[in-house]
Amino acid sequence: MSAKMSAATYPLSGPAKVEINEVAPRDGLQIEPFIVPTEGKVAFVNALARCGFARIEATSFTSARAIPALADAEAVMHQVERVAGVGLTVLVPNLRGLERALSCRPDEVNLVMSSSETHNRANLRMTREQSQAQLLAMIAEAGKAGVPVNVSLSTVFGCPFEGDVSEAEVMRLAKAFADAGAAGITLCDTTGMAYPNQVAALCETFQRALPKTGLTIHLHNTRGMGLANAIAAWQTGVTRFDAAAGGLGGCPYAPGASGNVSTEELVHMFASMGVDTGVELGALLDVVAGVSDLVQRDVSSQLLRAGPRLRTHQPPAWMEEFFAKA
Amino acid sequence: MSAKMSAATYPLSGPAKVEINEVAPRDGLQIEPFIVPTEGKVAFVNALARCGFARIEATSFTSARAIPALADAEAVMHQVERVAGVGLTVLVPNLRGLERALSCRPDEVNLVMSSSETHNRANLRMTREQSQAQLLAMIAEAGKAGVPVNVSLSTVFGCPFEGDVSEAEVMRLAKAFADAGAAGITLCDTTGMAYPNQVAALCETFQRALPKTGLTIHLHNTRGMGLANAIAAWQTGVTRFDAAAGGLGGCPYAPGASGNVSTEELVHMFASMGVDTGVELGALLDVVAGVSDLVQRDVSSQLLRAGPRLRTHQPPAWMEEFFAKA
Repeated sequence: MSAKMSAATYPLSGPAKVEINEVAPRDGLQIEPFIVPTEGKVAFVNALARCGFARIEATSFTSARAIPALADAEAVMHQVERVAGVGLTVLVPNLRGLERALSCRPDEVNLVMSSSETHNRANLRMTREQSQAQLLAMIAEAGKAGVPVNVSLSTVFGCPFEGDVSEAEVMRLAKAFADAGAAGITLCDTTGMAYPNQVAALCETFQRALPKTGLTIHLHNTRGMGLANAIAAWQTGVTRFDAAAGGLGGCPYAPGASGNVSTEELVHMFASMGVDTGVELGALLDVVAGVSDLVQRDVSSQLLRAGPRLRTHQPPAWMEEFFAKA
Repeated sequence: MSAKMSAATYPLSGPAKVEINEVAPRDGLQIEPFIVPTEGKVAFVNALARCGFARIEATSFTSARAIPALADAEAVMHQVERVAGVGLTVLVPNLRGLERALSCRPDEVNLVMSSSETHNRANLRMTREQSQAQLLAMIAEAGKAGVPVNVSLSTVFGCPFEGDVSEAEVMRLAKAFADAGAAGITLCDTTGMAYPNQVAALCETFQRALPKTGLTIHLHNTRGMGLANAIAAWQTGVTRFDAAAGGLGGCPYAPGASGNVSTEELVHMFASMGVDTGVELGALLDVVAGVSDLVQRDVSSQLLRAGPRLRTHQPPAWMEEFFAKA
């Protein structure tokens, strides 16, 4: 658990400072029907960088055939501004992708596999054993290049095909990658199956077993529990959260999946609680307001509609006269 | 804090058993543009009662002019089945409404005023002083009739006109009503301004100051924090929650307000956590599936679409052959 706890949060306590990894440019745009032009992606990443995110997952070095929406990964990485303090991470599926990624000088590469066998086969067309071997080879290669590796483990809180996934299986994979040199692990609730005490329990287990490995939590809001799960993780000392502006994203191979936890709601909640995210909410809401134009469909942001909690309203016009008379 | 805690929930802990007060028949239907016929309301309340709710807020004895949608309060109360273990509570705005309500033998009457001056004036057209006097008179009258009283305090976590509301003001009103004989108090997040550590702090203060007064929490999901706030309250020992099937409801006088926390999401979360709500989720989802027909508009329930977390799916058809060949 973080040494510096927020005193103001009693009786709920957790770290005074957290970091948000904004994943919309990759995890969001990859499944949008409209292919955002490169200049739109670059402007999106640049605008997000100015909001103060710790990390931004900028793109994915997948084959253009698999994910045509992100075929311009190199162009995006070459054109985006590098902002001090904002790490650019990129998703990499295999050794060929890693080679392409490393040529673009990312601050981190993010690898992915599922903790459940059926989801790994459906999503990656490999057995977990094949995926694990491939990821270990990529960790070694990235290590030679001096680029830190994060591994995102999918379906750790439940698999849409298999149901519950055992904590032991998740930790077996996490330990294998940490031992091989991964600097960070992301525990992903790929299809929104996580619930608060489960999240807290796995986060505690993870932090006890791998205290030196950076732990990020990736949540979806499929069943309304996104922010509840974030608080549960935070209460165990977790300081790193994935989130997507406008709640973009989902998983094309995960039936029933809805979008990622929305960054603006996560930042707004932490800001209300006095927890420092480093992100400027007003600037972020301006970016979110442009997401519908970016992806050419109506992206409804609940927080954008309602406004931050302290944006007060004028009382009804009749009121003053009514009470003056009374 | 409840003596009986759930052991399975470590490191997040709270009561092993909670109660849900289903408020959709009153708090939901009162603002629907379509006026649900009496038989529809009766069938709705009856179907909800069979799900196992501890309480159902069945209707409101407001003037037909103020809330035409609930003009049939007496008819509803006379026609609904009385189910053992399911308390029927009704909203009552004034002494005239109380008289009407008491003639229908409710198990409880629920009174309401705001904790912030401006919202009370806008919503009830009275000063808080006037409202408080009226509520005290109603508590006395209900006491003579032997009917328990609950008082719902609006805007305790923030007022859409004034911003933050002081805990001292909330507790001043809560104590006045508890001292006068109210059996329960509901702390209402009328426009979704509550955030988790604020909820936990006020719930702790309340339970320390008024340990014998039944505390219910009423949450909205306006800014995505509905379930996070429910867990925060639960962690301090709160066992009673308002919620509305399908997330119906809102406040016509509260700009930016969206619906109540959805009952199915709250029940699903607690069920996942091993916390007993008494509510049968499958039966509830059947009722929720009928809400769009009931109110004659599309009521989108996220949980109904996604299904409970352990409703698993078939893997893609290509998978078996693909891996058989490999």
